Amino acid sequence: MAVRSLENLLLDQLKDLYSAEKQITKALPKMTKAASTEELRAAFEEHLTQTEGQIARLEQVFELMGHSARAKKCVAMEGLIEEAKEHLDEDMEPAVLDAALIASAQKVEHYEIASYGTARTWAQQVGQQEAADLLQQTLNEESETDQKLTQLAIKQVNVQAA
Amino acid sequence: MAVRSLENLLLDQLKDLYSAEKQITKALPKMTKAASTEELRAAFEEHLTQTEGQIARLEQVFELMGHSARAKKCVAMEGLIEEAKEHLDEDMEPAVLDAALIASAQKVEHYEIASYGTARTWAQQVGQQEAADLLQQTLNEESETDQKLTQLAIKQVNVQAA
Repeated sequence: MAVRSLENLLLDQLKDLYSAEKQITKALPKMTKAASTEELRAAFEEHLTQTEGQIARLEQVFELMGHSARAKKCVAMEGLIEEAKEHLDEDMEPAVLDAALIASAQKVEHYEIASYGTARTWAQQVGQQEAADLLQQTLNEESETDQKLTQLAIKQVNVQAA
Repeated sequence: MAVRSLENLLLDQLKDLYSAEKQITKALPKMTKAASTEELRAAFEEHLTQTEGQIARLEQVFELMGHSARAKKCVAMEGLIEEAKEHLDEDMEPAVLDAALIASAQKVEHYEIASYGTARTWAQQVGQQEAADLLQQTLNEESETDQKLTQLAIKQVNVQAA
């Protein structure tokens, strides 16, 4: 087995993220359709547009590193999306289903926050600063999406408590 | 199928976390043994002690909610740990393996950050404030561990760049 370099690890991480993002673009429309509040639907729709931009950014990163964009099945994301889908088939009040959808979406966001954070740091380490900057942009977007979902969840708590 | 309540979703989330934490206590000793720097080994050892405290805290939360502590296999954590273990069998320089171990650990931390954040918010929503406070304590610890790992990763970047 060849000795793995950090650049090689980074490429694997990028392929994993490329697969994860593509899985997310397929799952988000189903989650949007299931959401009961207009705000949550709007948040999911906005994130779908954002995800498409993040895929294009990943393709730029692959190019900067001299490789063509390729996905390597992200099994963790498959599990996270499977969990989200299970909720869609359950019998829940709309507000409870929304809570479950937000929870699933935040697990997805946090997987991406960890992965993009790592990829950004590794890109710096192998001297790919332009790639690191692109990965940082996506990382910022994922963090903002997560914060927005937290606000939606807390707002729901306050409404329920009122 | 019974209509699911938010309290019911919360209990499922707690069972998922109870399983996740137990899986982590089994994985951490292997990751500690594989780490090449004393600092990373110390960080993993400290997190193992912390994880045992977090399991005890989850047991308190179950008790506050009038249920006995039970695990429900957390498939996402299984995938994340499986990924970490794959790296242990690969042929890598110690510094590259450390980078891979930190990356895996941060994905684990972020899964927990998302899950504890959700559980804390749901506990508030169902009026379990004492449980919410306990979950917040663990959430703070997980966030601190994640930040510590980021610092270790960046330090490694700086060392490499020097």
